[in-house]
Amino acid sequence: MSWRARLRELGVDLPPVVAPIGSYLPAVRSGSLVFTSGQLPVIAGEDLATGKVGAEISPEEAQRLARACALNTLAAVDALVGLDSVVRVVKVVGYVASAPGFTGQPAVVNGASDFYGEVFGDAGVHARSAVGVSELPRGVPVEVELVVEVG
Amino acid sequence: MSWRARLRELGVDLPPVVAPIGSYLPAVRSGSLVFTSGQLPVIAGEDLATGKVGAEISPEEAQRLARACALNTLAAVDALVGLDSVVRVVKVVGYVASAPGFTGQPAVVNGASDFYGEVFGDAGVHARSAVGVSELPRGVPVEVELVVEVG
Amino acid sequence: MSWRARLRELGVDLPPVVAPIGSYLPAVRSGSLVFTSGQLPVIAGEDLATGKVGAEISPEEAQRLARACALNTLAAVDALVGLDSVVRVVKVVGYVASAPGFTGQPAVVNGASDFYGEVFGDAGVHARSAVGVSELPRGVPVEVELVVEVG
Repeated sequence: MSWRARLRELGVDLPPVVAPIGSYLPAVRSGSLVFTSGQLPVIAGEDLATGKVGAEISPEEAQRLARACALNTLAAVDALVGLDSVVRVVKVVGYVASAPGFTGQPAVVNGASDFYGEVFGDAGVHARSAVGVSELPRGVPVEVELVVEVG
Repeated sequence: MSWRARLRELGVDLPPVVAPIGSYLPAVRSGSLVFTSGQLPVIAGEDLATGKVGAEISPEEAQRLARACALNTLAAVDALVGLDSVVRVVKVVGYVASAPGFTGQPAVVNGASDFYGEVFGDAGVHARSAVGVSELPRGVPVEVELVVEVG
Repeated sequence: MSWRARLRELGVDLPPVVAPIGSYLPAVRSGSLVFTSGQLPVIAGEDLATGKVGAEISPEEAQRLARACALNTLAAVDALVGLDSVVRVVKVVGYVASAPGFTGQPAVVNGASDFYGEVFGDAGVHARSAVGVSELPRGVPVEVELVVEVG
């Protein structure tokens, strides 16, 4: 089954790629690797939420936002090389805008990691860093960047 | 035209590579990729500014500092493999030391992204993440790291 | 001399790989690169310390914690491909949970960089970014991620 068919099976529509906020691209290929830009929790040009995780944003909501970021990374990969050329997910970095004292970044970023697993199965597991940052663009709570291997 | 000639055309001198603050190198090559260390806004051994963007440092000044970081990443690439071996810019991460509530990281990091575009044209557009961090080395406001493909 | 023999010479035991806190892997290989997940200062399932560097945690202690993170990155590489397949260390990112005003991230991350140098010699020097973040998973003071080239 193709990854696109798997997305349909999951009932997930691949959104249009999110326009960069500057002079860069949603994703770039070099050799067999595709690097995406950090993706925000945006749908149809609207930020899904703003605020810090552990204050205005609950960890559960942040997990859903991380999934939305991950979906946008796949849209960026798809627009560049076609989702079905993905051989495996390689690396994920999840940046979590964290209220003072919030240390649950791994559970938040699992919203992205679990989604890659749902779509790609064994090819979706990846190396990952999850860190808590003080501020993210436009005040969104989560940003996710992705490296995939393509064939 | 070579990239070095293009830099001259822009009136930009490639500075000497900035000495690492520890047991690492300004840049390392693996296969066709060169990874630079995070570069700070330093000229001739002097930090151009310290402080947080959105407090002591304006977004406009931070954009200029991001450009200085980007220039230092190119110096690091040049010292390792020669700037003219760059095939394309692949990935940029911009870390912005942000005052509470400052969420304009993308515009700041555009100072670096725009510079890569000026130098490399179409080969200069890249994938990018821009994040707001709480503190950077020696209190500088911006740090930029780069991945380029070389041939 | 093999890298494993060198570790023994240094009197360092490679610990068991630390279990991921979610749906990801300790390390992933793509082509000749191995990317590790961000590793925390954990030994035998116990966090060695929690707190911010520059407040509860001194820079000297943080340096030792960065070394512990680095050891865990090597355990992750070893479990995936065998430590002796490492050709060189390529890239290190060190995230330092920093108290307000603490700007000594480079010296902290030298705890990791110096360790890679002790183990791998000339093959251990790498490109590096050191940044200060507001929060890290479970409140640990340091997180280190690694990219190595393998043969």
